[in-house]
Amino acid sequence: MLRRKSNILVMKFGGTSVETPDKIRHAAERVVHARRGGRRIVVVVSAPGRMTDDLISLAKQIVPQPDQRELDMLLATGEQVGIALLTMAIKAKNVDAISLTGPQAGIAADDRHTRAHITGIRPNKLLQELKKGRVVIVAGFQGLNPREDIATLGRGGSDLTAVALAAVLKAERCDIFTDVRGIYTADPSLVPEARLLSHISYDEMLELASAGAQVMQPRSIEIAKKFSVPIRVSHALNPKDLGSWITAQGQEKHSMEEAVVTGVALDRNQIKVTLRDIPDRPGMAAELFSALGQAHINVDMIIQSAAKGNINDISFTISKEDLGPSQKILASVQRELRAGSVETDARVAKISIVGVGMKKHSGVAGKMFKVLADHRINIQMIATSEIKISCIIASDQGKNALKLLHQAFGLHRASLNSSV
Amino acid sequence: MLRRKSNILVMKFGGTSVETPDKIRHAAERVVHARRGGRRIVVVVSAPGRMTDDLISLAKQIVPQPDQRELDMLLATGEQVGIALLTMAIKAKNVDAISLTGPQAGIAADDRHTRAHITGIRPNKLLQELKKGRVVIVAGFQGLNPREDIATLGRGGSDLTAVALAAVLKAERCDIFTDVRGIYTADPSLVPEARLLSHISYDEMLELASAGAQVMQPRSIEIAKKFSVPIRVSHALNPKDLGSWITAQGQEKHSMEEAVVTGVALDRNQIKVTLRDIPDRPGMAAELFSALGQAHINVDMIIQSAAKGNINDISFTISKEDLGPSQKILASVQRELRAGSVETDARVAKISIVGVGMKKHSGVAGKMFKVLADHRINIQMIATSEIKISCIIASDQGKNALKLLHQAFGLHRASLNSSV
Repeated sequence: MLRRKSNILVMKFGGTSVETPDKIRHAAERVVHARRGGRRIVVVVSAPGRMTDDLISLAKQIVPQPDQRELDMLLATGEQVGIALLTMAIKAKNVDAISLTGPQAGIAADDRHTRAHITGIRPNKLLQELKKGRVVIVAGFQGLNPREDIATLGRGGSDLTAVALAAVLKAERCDIFTDVRGIYTADPSLVPEARLLSHISYDEMLELASAGAQVMQPRSIEIAKKFSVPIRVSHALNPKDLGSWITAQGQEKHSMEEAVVTGVALDRNQIKVTLRDIPDRPGMAAELFSALGQAHINVDMIIQSAAKGNINDISFTISKEDLGPSQKILASVQRELRAGSVETDARVAKISIVGVGMKKHSGVAGKMFKVLADHRINIQMIATSEIKISCIIASDQGKNALKLLHQAFGLHRASLNSSV
Repeated sequence: MLRRKSNILVMKFGGTSVETPDKIRHAAERVVHARRGGRRIVVVVSAPGRMTDDLISLAKQIVPQPDQRELDMLLATGEQVGIALLTMAIKAKNVDAISLTGPQAGIAADDRHTRAHITGIRPNKLLQELKKGRVVIVAGFQGLNPREDIATLGRGGSDLTAVALAAVLKAERCDIFTDVRGIYTADPSLVPEARLLSHISYDEMLELASAGAQVMQPRSIEIAKKFSVPIRVSHALNPKDLGSWITAQGQEKHSMEEAVVTGVALDRNQIKVTLRDIPDRPGMAAELFSALGQAHINVDMIIQSAAKGNINDISFTISKEDLGPSQKILASVQRELRAGSVETDARVAKISIVGVGMKKHSGVAGKMFKVLADHRINIQMIATSEIKISCIIASDQGKNALKLLHQAFGLHRASLNSSV
């Protein structure tokens, strides 16, 4: 997809990058530097430090299940504090700037409080301010819903704001400044040999994110892909870092020899649910999963096995925070399907390998399974996509499996992916 | 002035009344109680606890003189936190409620960031929500200015929001819940014998506020007077307290025998400025005070004395926080008027006695001066209005003077003003 680029740069600062006055001044310095380079600048800011978590815990001291609209009214203040402070710091360096809340920036959202989606952006005011030569600092994570209430966009929502603005403004790129140096072949806190990737494709990033890598919010990658917004992820405090580029081609265009596997990821936030001894009848699985779907509970991996004759077991995984809200549904589905029991197992982890190179190479899955088998790591469930293979294993073997696969697929080697 | 009253009650909770989850639940209880009594309820909330001060100090860590628009963007979050938390607490008690920011509540303000005035209120949305049977919780201290930016209303701005809403909605009354039991004959921390007043008139309250009593913001009293909004001030945590009523008649209607003096007040926030040895010429004083006026510096008391022949001294008082901003103006006026010197004296205090009863009694001023003279308290400046007499004295004699006048005018006595 081709698009005409403007000279607008979108710069997004995460919460850790604005958590102290010093870091705010540092972020301002980067904005001022980019502005003096001649480009028009739109900045997106998250709530400073742990402010969002602090506000949530404050609300829960009032009432365990706070009203969702009022929770959004509360949480939106975090980003508003962030934009005001960063704008003050930029203006103190004699660069004209103005802050806009999400609603002021024309960000329209839907009705789902605390996890709204962006439905559109009317950037008139934002463009007017850019025209005046101002840097525009926009509150991430928030928009105005059809009832003219403030709605927040869920965890990682500021990434979404930044990428969506970059798409609408046809920005040259979207710079994500954070507390890591970019995208790694594996989580460096688990695999010390993990290497920084100079390039990764949208599809790989999406699969890595859904496989448990926490760097970027998946919805923002989807939008970047749809509107061909190049993303660069780098450390907020190291201006010399080149970071990682997330683009359509990924490393394809940038490496002499393409790696089969780009990254490995471990997701320890999974829980396995098993309904045992269900009398077989058509539509049984559909009933179960549509009930969970209606309650907005994401089911990740599924395995169905004919245990004995006409009696089935169904296992699936959900994320740990969805277990509470699923309990009622599971109980009622159990009654309806006349299942023998419902079991949950939190001692599982999902290990995944991701890479566009898999499309052209056979035997990747076989190699993964063999590596795990050779080290007596039992595979409980398997799921594959064109560029990802995931296995559910015991959680206490997760970290070891990650290291073994990182090694086996050559990700520790001096870079195949070092051309910048 | 007669007005038709609605069955709407405006309840305003100050920052100390919502500073902890417990206090927020307590405030919610009072709101729910009033709502269950059948009235329609509009609540105005300040920023919890010391949040406004904390935000100001955070801004000053970024830059000593923060941009005023951005400071408003920052400060407005305090009240937004307050309304969200209180609304959660009310809804948790199964009473339908909704929070509105100042802009959402239709509060229009002028362009003076950090000390804007309310220019109008469009209560459409607020009335719609009341119609749905909801309690409406409005953020105090904020409005939307003509540029659609958030503007804050200055110290005590939440009182102003509450009284202005009560005026527009023709509310039955405006209840101010705070951390004192009401209006006293003197500051109880300085005069332990001070008595709670059950009634006080708008005019007396205005004079007491300008004399240094901090309970209510003066502009809010002016609006209450203009639109005949009865105000009741009482302690947020003592539902059985009757508090103090601020109305047109004050105690006139409520006491058998009217007191001459209603209250005494001490203002230690004054500073005396003296321009010495100014060659006399017409318009000299006008020049000085219009220069200060243009810089929005409020001059309180003025004394001009012909020192020797054609050479004059001018002394006046301003509040301490205005000294910094006046320095430049004073220096340039000194040059222009060819004054010999500018002296400032911070060791002064203003002592005032206030009472509508003064209109009908002579000799009140004489009695005041005699009491002070008998105790060797020197009077440096005097100012009088129809219902107030103020004297500038040495600040170290202020507390003693307050006690002496409280005693001399019989304010310590068992109430003349106890009919409720």
